[in-house]
Amino acid sequence: MAVGSHRAAPEHTHPDEVPLLTALAALADPVRLTLVRELARAADWTRSCGSFDVPVGKAALSHHLAVLRGAGLVEQRDEGPRRVNRLRRAEFDARFPGLLDLVLKGD
Amino acid sequence: MAVGSHRAAPEHTHPDEVPLLTALAALADPVRLTLVRELARAADWTRSCGSFDVPVGKAALSHHLAVLRGAGLVEQRDEGPRRVNRLRRAEFDARFPGLLDLVLKGD
Repeated sequence: MAVGSHRAAPEHTHPDEVPLLTALAALADPVRLTLVRELARAADWTRSCGSFDVPVGKAALSHHLAVLRGAGLVEQRDEGPRRVNRLRRAEFDARFPGLLDLVLKGD
Repeated sequence: MAVGSHRAAPEHTHPDEVPLLTALAALADPVRLTLVRELARAADWTRSCGSFDVPVGKAALSHHLAVLRGAGLVEQRDEGPRRVNRLRRAEFDARFPGLLDLVLKGD
């Protein structure tokens, strides 16, 4: 991703502030499920936004990541030109016990 | 509900056949969440379709109940003029352990 492509620092919602419906809606999407699963397999802060293998354009990917941030599932930070991600696994598990396990176990 | 208002027997999907995304999407809706919670508080086959306290019309209610049947969450049968419902709690729990508990515990 180009330097300066992120104009503002990302806004986050802590899982403790997330309604159940928001969490369910965030996970009820195939692209977002893929993002969550890919993040679960990677070490924190190692996956940049451009590194995900999902069949959507950059704007849609930004939207999906914003939904995941808003549901307390993903934390992002900028490291120079890269925006890197981590799954908020422990915090989300504390708020919604078992939900991520179910999602990561998959079908 | 009037006699004969249901033309065909309802179609059901067993929870074992339900993809995770379908289950999450079915639950990620405030009306359907209310239906599931009301059913969880009632004995099986005691709630008719007209008995739910949800702010939607009859066609929308039918749609929501069809989504819940398709996600393996609700079973319906006709008893004379009434279509009655039950939550498929045990079967759904076996397929998606912990998900209904999370939903029923609420926010």
